[in-house]
Amino acid sequence: MSLASQVLDNAKKDGKMIATAESCTGGMVAAALTDIPGSSAVVDRGFITYTNAAKVEMLGVSPDTLAAHGAVSPEVAREMAQGALARSHAHLAVAITGIAGPGGSEFKPEGRVCFGIATRGDIRTDTVEFGALGRDKVRAAARDHALRLLLDAL
Amino acid sequence: MSLASQVLDNAKKDGKMIATAESCTGGMVAAALTDIPGSSAVVDRGFITYTNAAKVEMLGVSPDTLAAHGAVSPEVAREMAQGALARSHAHLAVAITGIAGPGGSEFKPEGRVCFGIATRGDIRTDTVEFGALGRDKVRAAARDHALRLLLDAL
Repeated sequence: MSLASQVLDNAKKDGKMIATAESCTGGMVAAALTDIPGSSAVVDRGFITYTNAAKVEMLGVSPDTLAAHGAVSPEVAREMAQGALARSHAHLAVAITGIAGPGGSEFKPEGRVCFGIATRGDIRTDTVEFGALGRDKVRAAARDHALRLLLDAL
Repeated sequence: MSLASQVLDNAKKDGKMIATAESCTGGMVAAALTDIPGSSAVVDRGFITYTNAAKVEMLGVSPDTLAAHGAVSPEVAREMAQGALARSHAHLAVAITGIAGPGGSEFKPEGRVCFGIATRGDIRTDTVEFGALGRDKVRAAARDHALRLLLDAL
């Protein structure tokens, strides 16, 4: 059973809705969840915030946080997850911001991805160095890690 | 060269940014565009509006339009594209709302997908009956059709 199917099943059992806030994965997490028939009972909405302006305007990420820590940081991942939860009817939001590559930026290595996971009452972040696997593999690994975080949080 | 690469290349040449508003494709169009390195110059943001509430709250679709025509309608596709353009810094927005299946709804057949494409100054809609090909094939066909609409509009 795929990760996405497990997330869907567990969320359905608990009557929980999910929101996503994606930067480097650009919609892959939401696409994986909505691959499954019946996902409309679980997927509330998704925010694809590819630019910094989108992170600020769609999710309420603070420009100060972006300036101080950069877009790929646990601080921004946390605010993205919080913003997605606040701007949706979901019980659970996952956020992904990372450097898929090719090439690093802002003195941060290719393959670094920061995650935020927010529930009503709790918020955690997680940073993973996937390494310079190449864009496709980093994005797929980040998608699967986000799905696992959702599964753990359910 | 993939459809997504062609969209990226043409948009870059013209200095145009793109926004997406996705219902049944659930992020697949944005994911395809952001698969390409350098997509951050072109992809502004994406709205994954899986529920009717998300369509209203994120894109400003009118509840009256939803009630009168249903979520899968050219009228809603048009308002989704307009809303994505108005709520972004993009020059071009594509919207997708359809019945991926399994099964139809609202007296509409499985495989019907409505598209909206909005530029600053022009808005068009397009409805395609992909037929009951199965969820995966309808979603992939809808993603590719949306990419072709972007390509035509550039």
